[in-house]
Amino acid sequence: MTTPTIEQIHQHGSVRDYQSKPVSREIVETIVAAGQRASTSSNLQMYSVVATTDAKKRKRLRELCGGQAHVEQAPVFMAWCADLSRLHRACETQGYTQEPGYMENLLLAAVDAALAMQNAALAAESLGLGMCYIGGIRNNPLDVIDLLALPPLAFPVSGMTLGWPESPPPIRPRLPLEAILHWERYDADDEDHLQAYDQAMIETGIYEGRQVSGSEMEEKVYGWQEHSARRVSRPIRTHLYNALVKAGFLTEETT
Amino acid sequence: MTTPTIEQIHQHGSVRDYQSKPVSREIVETIVAAGQRASTSSNLQMYSVVATTDAKKRKRLRELCGGQAHVEQAPVFMAWCADLSRLHRACETQGYTQEPGYMENLLLAAVDAALAMQNAALAAESLGLGMCYIGGIRNNPLDVIDLLALPPLAFPVSGMTLGWPESPPPIRPRLPLEAILHWERYDADDEDHLQAYDQAMIETGIYEGRQVSGSEMEEKVYGWQEHSARRVSRPIRTHLYNALVKAGFLTEETT
Repeated sequence: MTTPTIEQIHQHGSVRDYQSKPVSREIVETIVAAGQRASTSSNLQMYSVVATTDAKKRKRLRELCGGQAHVEQAPVFMAWCADLSRLHRACETQGYTQEPGYMENLLLAAVDAALAMQNAALAAESLGLGMCYIGGIRNNPLDVIDLLALPPLAFPVSGMTLGWPESPPPIRPRLPLEAILHWERYDADDEDHLQAYDQAMIETGIYEGRQVSGSEMEEKVYGWQEHSARRVSRPIRTHLYNALVKAGFLTEETT
Repeated sequence: MTTPTIEQIHQHGSVRDYQSKPVSREIVETIVAAGQRASTSSNLQMYSVVATTDAKKRKRLRELCGGQAHVEQAPVFMAWCADLSRLHRACETQGYTQEPGYMENLLLAAVDAALAMQNAALAAESLGLGMCYIGGIRNNPLDVIDLLALPPLAFPVSGMTLGWPESPPPIRPRLPLEAILHWERYDADDEDHLQAYDQAMIETGIYEGRQVSGSEMEEKVYGWQEHSARRVSRPIRTHLYNALVKAGFLTEETT
């Protein structure tokens, strides 16, 4: 049971090595327009994207986003933002006072942005481009906000590198479907699935020689559970709440 | 500049009227497997989905999600959840202590879920199915958690109705591309774009006779800015922060 779209979806792998060949404005416009066709809560369209091709800016973004080479190397970097600022302008025009500062608006805007960027990613891949999401954009969100001149009430949710792949990306195995999809009620008895996935990931060799940065944990052959447990047992981007407050998305009173 | 996938993306409209014909398990499995191919931060796969076909449960979900008829009518309802509970189990197995409670983990899990569900939505549409996201799942999240037996650290981000469309869905115009896509830096001077979109939406007649529920605002012909300003000038789902604390996603100390 498949379709050309499903086949396209199954070809996805994150691309971290790009040709220097530029990407045209028309392509970027085409994939953002595809992004816009995703559902958006109550048609509020609470997201924006800032695309940059400027080499100096991409270099700076690399510094701000965790140092990954492909952020500088890819010819286009896109900052996908949760954006309540457009509705703030609409409220001013129409004579209303916006009520931001609720978790609901943050979640809604982040999901709106994510649905749009996934459509855009798939559209890009169908044109032969490669992409990679850059969660590191949340490493220094306030500096990114400055660099891209984001107004209050706009916040970078995810970066995206975009370009022509140097080679086809590796496609990693995912968790067994049974671990993700539950019927009628959640089934937490998934130990066998997780162990099977550990084995599948060990066979890819993908975690070999990897070490959680800054840790002194002993290196060994390990699978997904160990990889993931290391990641989530350490605080991560603990500045995010305060950055969201500063950007106007949350307030201490209303959250 | 187009591809079969881009053409598929442009055919999306939310479906709110379904045939009674059931949807096979194989289809649901196929579209969730497509969802799994989306990028996921550090391969953590912080999401799960609970699919329900049980008529009594769908009736109850309708009550909990805002009363929309298609939540009960569609043969399948899917609850897409941010899920840190699987990693909690992995931490226990591997001997680590999870550090949930950070905004970063919530945002990351919600985005992971959204990327997967958008892939799944597109896969479903390519098979001839229709779908509609149900943000109303956040109206009574703790009751939904009970109904679907979600463990601590799993939280419903969005619902999705799934079924065979009774008729092709309407496709609404979106904001002008120039209002969404910025180059090099954000451009907040978008008044002309918003006014043009107001006009486009007035011509669809979509907001005619609509009233923000519970308000006593005077009815009139209005466009997107007025529609949206009304929506965001009122507090919405103000229980969400506390529900997320209760589900273990945020703590008062760490956020």
